[in-house]
Amino acid sequence: MLELRLVQGSLLKKVLESIKDLVNDANFDCSATGFSLQAMDSSHVALVALLLRSEGFEHYRCDRNISMGMNLGNMSKMLKCAGNDDIITIKADDGSDTVTFMFESPNQDKIADFEMKLMDIDSEHLGIPEAEYQAIVRMPSAEFARICKDLSSIGDTVVISVTKEGVKFSTQGDIGTANIVCRQNTTVDKPEEATVIEMQQPVSLTFALRYMNSFTKATPLSNTVTISLSTELPVVVEYKIAEMGYIRFYLAPKIEEDDEETKPQV
Amino acid sequence: MLELRLVQGSLLKKVLESIKDLVNDANFDCSATGFSLQAMDSSHVALVALLLRSEGFEHYRCDRNISMGMNLGNMSKMLKCAGNDDIITIKADDGSDTVTFMFESPNQDKIADFEMKLMDIDSEHLGIPEAEYQAIVRMPSAEFARICKDLSSIGDTVVISVTKEGVKFSTQGDIGTANIVCRQNTTVDKPEEATVIEMQQPVSLTFALRYMNSFTKATPLSNTVTISLSTELPVVVEYKIAEMGYIRFYLAPKIEEDDEETKPQV
Amino acid sequence: MLELRLVQGSLLKKVLESIKDLVNDANFDCSATGFSLQAMDSSHVALVALLLRSEGFEHYRCDRNISMGMNLGNMSKMLKCAGNDDIITIKADDGSDTVTFMFESPNQDKIADFEMKLMDIDSEHLGIPEAEYQAIVRMPSAEFARICKDLSSIGDTVVISVTKEGVKFSTQGDIGTANIVCRQNTTVDKPEEATVIEMQQPVSLTFALRYMNSFTKATPLSNTVTISLSTELPVVVEYKIAEMGYIRFYLAPKIEEDDEETKPQV
Repeated sequence: MLELRLVQGSLLKKVLESIKDLVNDANFDCSATGFSLQAMDSSHVALVALLLRSEGFEHYRCDRNISMGMNLGNMSKMLKCAGNDDIITIKADDGSDTVTFMFESPNQDKIADFEMKLMDIDSEHLGIPEAEYQAIVRMPSAEFARICKDLSSIGDTVVISVTKEGVKFSTQGDIGTANIVCRQNTTVDKPEEATVIEMQQPVSLTFALRYMNSFTKATPLSNTVTISLSTELPVVVEYKIAEMGYIRFYLAPKIEEDDEETKPQV
Repeated sequence: MLELRLVQGSLLKKVLESIKDLVNDANFDCSATGFSLQAMDSSHVALVALLLRSEGFEHYRCDRNISMGMNLGNMSKMLKCAGNDDIITIKADDGSDTVTFMFESPNQDKIADFEMKLMDIDSEHLGIPEAEYQAIVRMPSAEFARICKDLSSIGDTVVISVTKEGVKFSTQGDIGTANIVCRQNTTVDKPEEATVIEMQQPVSLTFALRYMNSFTKATPLSNTVTISLSTELPVVVEYKIAEMGYIRFYLAPKIEEDDEETKPQV
Repeated sequence: MLELRLVQGSLLKKVLESIKDLVNDANFDCSATGFSLQAMDSSHVALVALLLRSEGFEHYRCDRNISMGMNLGNMSKMLKCAGNDDIITIKADDGSDTVTFMFESPNQDKIADFEMKLMDIDSEHLGIPEAEYQAIVRMPSAEFARICKDLSSIGDTVVISVTKEGVKFSTQGDIGTANIVCRQNTTVDKPEEATVIEMQQPVSLTFALRYMNSFTKATPLSNTVTISLSTELPVVVEYKIAEMGYIRFYLAPKIEEDDEETKPQV
């Protein structure tokens, strides 16, 4: 039997909003450790990994490891019926082919239960090795979302270049070119407004803006985003989820025809 | 001659917004008692009845009973041109084939008059007998609107079941099932937030969600909605209009193939 | 070399939003006096004239007169990437076929530069003679925008009639007629809420509402609008731009078949 009670139910709503357009169907894996998901996007280019640790739930009962295949569009439809202040409980009986989402209003006057059919989904769990990154940028998530959206109006790809001084986002398209530089800045009033760069060596990588824009749908989950870059590895775009986990997006860089383009430069 | 001056003109704007999608053309009946309308929706399934009592108008002159046929879409276009704080006066000369809506801004700096052509509409006025209902539910109108909208994302019909403890709204569709229970609750800070159930006997009836959603367009007219249910009768969904009348929607329940389904159950 | 630094960058964003739907491509003319534009709309019916005087810029360097052809849609895409509090600098090197827009965030943490290709645009600069107008109406710009929008739901043209008492906006269409009268009113709390009429003689002219509605996209630039009318001349709809210039729209009146219609009357 599975019963997971999440007081801050809006977190689960936001998680679904941030991945439902990227991934159609996925297995949610439940174990003593937590509630997690790993899935490729429908065109098998990007990978999303979610973890909600068991400690983050008010009540967490998971008698045995279970993998539940869900259509994220349908799951999102149901979670949208939860109020933003509702407590959400995820329930499943052993061997059942359904999962139940229960929504309780704060004053307990309104109780809703939504039952959804589970799916059989073939998926292989990829091991994601811990890695050292050449550069890690932490910046306000809204700023990163704004930059990706702005650059999309000019071009299709973004070159992210990191030096000690800052991070540069560049694009070019038919109507011209754009460069946006965010300087390292740690002397801010609120820590979540800082732009912090940890750099082993300068790095410059090119990515499809379409995916970056999709990742930024997780912006409501966290005030900050962490972007980890290495020439040999997929970029990791990570949003922390209020002391209980994270959502991470992985995307391989584009290989440029022109070798010049891939040299680090800000 | 007809001249009806309504200081709270926004009420008339809201009335039109709540019925214009349900009814295309309708006769407005004006008598010494008040300004009223009774009309079937365009597919002849639902009935809407509106009453604005003469006492609710600042000035109410209606020399003889008159029935004015109006296209509600066009009338809505004109009323949308009134400001929310405007005083609205409805005027018609005897025997005229037009009606005039006059809008006065609060400071009298802006005066608009919109003249609309009247239509000849055949309609029979149905007598709606007073009835005893098995169950009457009064609840916050925004809550009812939210429930109808939420259930529409899962299924096409709603089963409304009333017991002493509460009212349950249920639906089912391809992706699963949903049940939302609102408990009777009279100990609230504001009376309009209460959910109050008057029940002679338990009742459970099925309705098309498409119509329920249409009725909830009247939500801005009132903080509360009253739902009156009996197995033998159309449901009445009533929104009171600020001490001057009401708008009532009538809809016949769906007859289930399976007899089990129509038995009262919560 | 050209370098124009505008601290209140949002003004330039608003200017583009107000003309980009009316004009596709246009030459911006830069001289010691200021940054200006004059262009016909794409159907050669309306004329727009913009002036941003050099004194309004924090820094204004224009070594020689230059005319830069820009696609306003693309320019708007780039300016939308500037934050509302950003400082905008327009830069161009002599003989270059590109222009650069630089956006600096208020705290200087984020610097963006957008480079856009220039175009060769044939255009003749029309001399617009100073004229005496029979009537000049100054009124709140939001009120004028609301009236144009409201009348568009009824008809295609607006008759603007001015007398000493006020200004009347009228239209008619298939569903009826509408008249909106704004009275002269100078005894208001805030000067920008006044409706002021300077009249040499009564005037009544007819205009296409489609263009009037397009002009009102400049509403965010100014709290007031000035409408200058004469029977022999195009109307001028002017929005002042915060102590540094203006945007003016010119539109020829429609000639009515029926002579009666063009007589001044309120």
